[in-house]
Formats: sequence, C-alpha cells, structure tokens
Amino acid sequence: MEDVRMIEVKEEILADNSQVAAGVRKRLRKTKTMLLNLMSSPGSGKTSLILKTIEGLQGAVRLGVIEADIDSKVDAEKVAATGIAAVQLRTGGFCHLDATMVTQGIDALPANDFDLIIIENVGNLVCPAEFDTGAYKNVMILSVPEGDDKPLKYPLMFSICDVLLVNKIDYLSLSDFDMATLKKRVLALNPNIKIIEVSCKTGQGIGDWVAWLKKEVNDFQLDQRSQ
Amino acid sequence: MEDVRMIEVKEEILADNSQVAAGVRKRLRKTKTMLLNLMSSPGSGKTSLILKTIEGLQGAVRLGVIEADIDSKVDAEKVAATGIAAVQLRTGGFCHLDATMVTQGIDALPANDFDLIIIENVGNLVCPAEFDTGAYKNVMILSVPEGDDKPLKYPLMFSICDVLLVNKIDYLSLSDFDMATLKKRVLALNPNIKIIEVSCKTGQGIGDWVAWLKKEVNDFQLDQRSQ
Repeated sequence: MEDVRMIEVKEEILADNSQVAAGVRKRLRKTKTMLLNLMSSPGSGKTSLILKTIEGLQGAVRLGVIEADIDSKVDAEKVAATGIAAVQLRTGGFCHLDATMVTQGIDALPANDFDLIIIENVGNLVCPAEFDTGAYKNVMILSVPEGDDKPLKYPLMFSICDVLLVNKIDYLSLSDFDMATLKKRVLALNPNIKIIEVSCKTGQGIGDWVAWLKKEVNDFQLDQRSQ
Repeated sequence: MEDVRMIEVKEEILADNSQVAAGVRKRLRKTKTMLLNLMSSPGSGKTSLILKTIEGLQGAVRLGVIEADIDSKVDAEKVAATGIAAVQLRTGGFCHLDATMVTQGIDALPANDFDLIIIENVGNLVCPAEFDTGAYKNVMILSVPEGDDKPLKYPLMFSICDVLLVNKIDYLSLSDFDMATLKKRVLALNPNIKIIEVSCKTGQGIGDWVAWLKKEVNDFQLDQRSQ
C-alpha cells in the first residue's frame, strides 16, 4: 500500500474564512473539479460511504479524497488501498475543517485534474456546519442507530446540506427509528434537501447515490464549460 | 407533565474556565452533591441511559438532571416525565458546555440538596472533552454502531473519562465491532478507565453501572464528611 501523506493543519485565525472559501471555489472552477463536503457524527459511515462510492463510480470520474481526523490516518489508508488518491489531514484538537485547511488538502493531493474531490470532515454534527469549506455541495449522513430526533437537536447541519444519506437502514428492524417522522422533521428545516436511504453494508441505495453524484459532476462541468 | 425550564446559556468569554470549574466543585462539596458529566456522539444513548439510571436508582439518591442541547427541550421533558428535577440548557450554536453554563444549570434546578447531578453534555466527541465543567466524574458512552475505531480518532475524550459505557450491545450480532480490540485501544489511552458494557434497550449491564454510581456517590459523600 502506498504510504499516505499526513498533513498537520492549523486554523488560519486572521483570514476571513468566507473569502478563503470563495477562493477555493474559484480555483476549482478553473480545473472543473467539483468539491463535495461529507459530514456526520462519529461512526455514521463516512469512510464506508466513500469506499462504496469508489466501487460504484467504477473509475467513471477522476476522484481525489481528503480525509480529516483529529488523529490517526486509518481512513486515508483505507481509501488509498483502493488506488484512489487520498491525503489525511490531522487537525490536532480542531473539531471542524475550514477553507484554509481544505486548501492545504487540495495542495497535498498528487494531481490537479480531478473531476471530483470528496472531503471527509471531522465526525461532528455541530461545528462543521458553521464553516464554509469552499465545497460546491454539502452532504451529510445520519445513521439509523442515532435516532430520528437528530434534526430537532442539530438543526443547522440539516439546514445547510444538499443531500441527506440515511445510512445503516439494515438496522431498521432492530430500531424504533421512524423514517416518515425523520423525513418530516428534515424537510421542515430544509424543503430542498434530497434524502436517499442507503446501507453501506448491504449496498442498498448506493446506486441511487452514485447516480445523483455522477449527474451532479456532469452538470457542474457543463456549467463551467458554458461560462 | 411539568413544564420544563429552558435556559438560554452564553459562553463566558472573559472568565477563566478552570477557575469557574473549581468554583463549581467547591460549591458542590458544601452540599455533598456529586456532579457527573455525561458525554457521547449524537445518538449514542445519553438520554436513554439517564432514564435507565433513574429506574435503577429507585429513588436511592436525590437526583437532578441538566440537559444541554443546541436546540429543543425534548430530552429534559423525557426526564421530567419521570418526576426527576430537570432543566434544559439551550446552547444556541455552542458545541460544548463550559463551567459557566453548568453554573447556570445548577442555579436553575429547583433544589440544592441533590446527592447527584447528571449533566447531559452536547452530543459531540470533540469539544466537550476540552472544557472542564466542574464535574467530579466524567463518563462517556460509545455505542456499538459507531465502531471500535473511535479511540483512534477521538483520543482526548477517551483519555479524560473515568467510565466508558459501551452501549447498544444488542447490536453486536449485526456488527463487525470487536469488543476486545475496542478495550485494548481504550486502555492504551487510559489504563484506569472502567469499561461497562450495557444495552439501554434490554437493560443488560445497567445494574453494574447503577452499582458503580451508587458506590461513587456514597464514597464522595463520606469523603466530604471526613473533611
């Protein structure tokens, strides 16, 4: 296995994060690279989803992955083992990624001609929702064991995402999770969000997710060409 | 159901949190009240554990509960429905409790002769680990669906806790969670931590947890008397 680069990132205290995020967006428009920010609680299945996404894309898009964790590079190593370009950001104590850290991640990737870069943010439903990473799309995972009441408690995260993936639906039979209630609560916060039910374990729903992703990358690249 | 008080808390920017936390500890020694800070990811089962603890204690200790959430008071309402004194702190955007917020919670409880006050911190494995709340004991929950790799990614939280409750062990049969690996990883970070396997759904292990809690409250109160 290729040795994964571990980048120690620091928060840029003085810079205006919105400006840095706008710079990330401008830079990635030039290379026609769609940046996707993936967020969730710890253990909801971010890395598993990325691995399933790599399988599902079957090389159809050139993909780079930026993993972030407070410590350890186990996630980036799992991704790199598939042959996909991956870099691990070590945030030290930080509980979220900002646009400066993402810039460091993009710089550390071994190429600059990706169609899609996926950021796996720090596992946290609170702080990452407050920081613009420069991503074009924000996607979150909620896993069934976490419960259907999470939109009531972490409303900002559900409000800012373009897609909600409800993962671990293979646990539904063991759980009192009510999918209809969940969807009602999420749509009350964010009527435009797309909700896709998936299981990274069984593969259920992954096809729908990958189809959405391919279409978005394609549309994004057509948009850049027409400008 | 009694209407639950919702307290809007603000971070005390200027105060030194360690000093405020020391003040909380001093104040609670006087009333022989043990303060316990309960932390976990979103959806690991903090509220369910508190409800099971109330059942298990069967009124043996006078208990107050401080619930914290970014929004909503559903948790405090569930606790109050059992007849236990509960207050809800609404942290707005804040991702953790500090000692000033805890002070506001203690002030808002309807009595000052509790044997035990449990704080349910904001669902987050990162930021709450960095702020001393003034608690005498720190307890965390990791639920089986989150995975056995969490100590690698959120080492500080596992390092600062006195007890780790591994919840949702009824999910073990569906999961590749390896309990021996988890324990090895946790003990490498924190050799003194007590690990108790529980299921808030089936009740398994709750007796061990409640026995630990009763003994700690008793020992704490004996210590205060002898001083």
